[in-house]
Amino acid sequence: MEALTKIRIVMVETTLAANIGSAARAMKTMGLADLVLINPKCEIDDQTLAIAAGAEEVVRNARTYATLAEGVADCTQVVGASARTRSLPWPMVDPDEMGQIAVSEPGTVAIVLGRESSGLTNEELAICTKHVHIPANPDYSSLNVAMAVQVLAWSCRKAALAGVEPEASDEPLAEVQQIEGFYQHLQQVLVDIEFLDPNNPRHLMVRLKRLFARTQLEQNEVNILRGVLAHIQKKAKGAK
Amino acid sequence: MEALTKIRIVMVETTLAANIGSAARAMKTMGLADLVLINPKCEIDDQTLAIAAGAEEVVRNARTYATLAEGVADCTQVVGASARTRSLPWPMVDPDEMGQIAVSEPGTVAIVLGRESSGLTNEELAICTKHVHIPANPDYSSLNVAMAVQVLAWSCRKAALAGVEPEASDEPLAEVQQIEGFYQHLQQVLVDIEFLDPNNPRHLMVRLKRLFARTQLEQNEVNILRGVLAHIQKKAKGAK
Repeated sequence: MEALTKIRIVMVETTLAANIGSAARAMKTMGLADLVLINPKCEIDDQTLAIAAGAEEVVRNARTYATLAEGVADCTQVVGASARTRSLPWPMVDPDEMGQIAVSEPGTVAIVLGRESSGLTNEELAICTKHVHIPANPDYSSLNVAMAVQVLAWSCRKAALAGVEPEASDEPLAEVQQIEGFYQHLQQVLVDIEFLDPNNPRHLMVRLKRLFARTQLEQNEVNILRGVLAHIQKKAKGAK
Repeated sequence: MEALTKIRIVMVETTLAANIGSAARAMKTMGLADLVLINPKCEIDDQTLAIAAGAEEVVRNARTYATLAEGVADCTQVVGASARTRSLPWPMVDPDEMGQIAVSEPGTVAIVLGRESSGLTNEELAICTKHVHIPANPDYSSLNVAMAVQVLAWSCRKAALAGVEPEASDEPLAEVQQIEGFYQHLQQVLVDIEFLDPNNPRHLMVRLKRLFARTQLEQNEVNILRGVLAHIQKKAKGAK
């Protein structure tokens, strides 16, 4: 079950510490251990650890970051839990497909769960390479966040038990921090060449991120693209 | 999703009311509504309903029985959640297989969850027609009972979403109460013919129940078998 050790559960701005304890327990029952908390809105206390039951060390070892981008910087695949209805459709998978992807991915995979009340923001969803949707009862789709962790961790474990293994990769995929660096560079160039109006950006960057989320950028490709961007900037400056 | 309405979640001697509230919420998110409590060891209170969130009516509509046999009397399929290691292996399925079975079954299906501490007794497991095992981390397999409800209810919903439908049946399957009546009759006859020593029963009845659990008795077959038993009793009496 070594494939499960490179899967990270990321909980964003969780309000109830009980949900963190409960999620830690759910993770450990499925063989997951890597928990990251983004700007949690609660205190981890003794009760949290009590709820985690035998999985206290998952809570104790959890790392905390201020933003999602930081918490998934080293990941090559970031799967965000999402309701189905979004204005811009992202590459969408169901839990079983997500399990296969998470286990077969050579690099670190983050599975991201949003706030109890409101899920993930559009900005956070745009950091994700894929979205996963648990097709709940449309009349009552309010899955508790720790329950969602249980379902998604079970999907990963099932794929691992079925013998899915990390794929060998000659061409390593880009990590989120490289991709985010590319996006910032791209945005700057689009402003420089006066294609993007920073005062009226519309959905341009989201649309471009969606395009690249589908392609799964490799590290080499990011380097090539950034080389192209640097040259555009040089030419644009010279033309002024 | 009509196939989901004939699936019943049965919680046996639950200790923590929070787990009942949490299980009710899990059920409703997956489109399940029929909850039965067997001799619960806790009081349903306002906090239970608060935890159930939008699924209060699942808790309010829950029926309570003294024994598992009563709570599943009208079911044609009873799937008990079980750890893998049992002295006598029962027909065993994984969650996905269970979901397919539960949705394709024409009659009412019970999914039975045991006590938080100790699961189901051997006697209760012997009432089940199948056992389901969630293959958790062998180093830490302590799945919370409401989490198990979430995983198993999700397995049912997934089968229903995949288009699995109740099978038409010309030969209706026997309900648990008919099967239990047959077992009691059988046991009496085995005593009458001095094959079974009531003071030293060994595992004879469990072994026979296991045999019939594999066959999935139809109602007609139960009637035939009971007719045979009645005739044996008559002959045995005449021979005295």
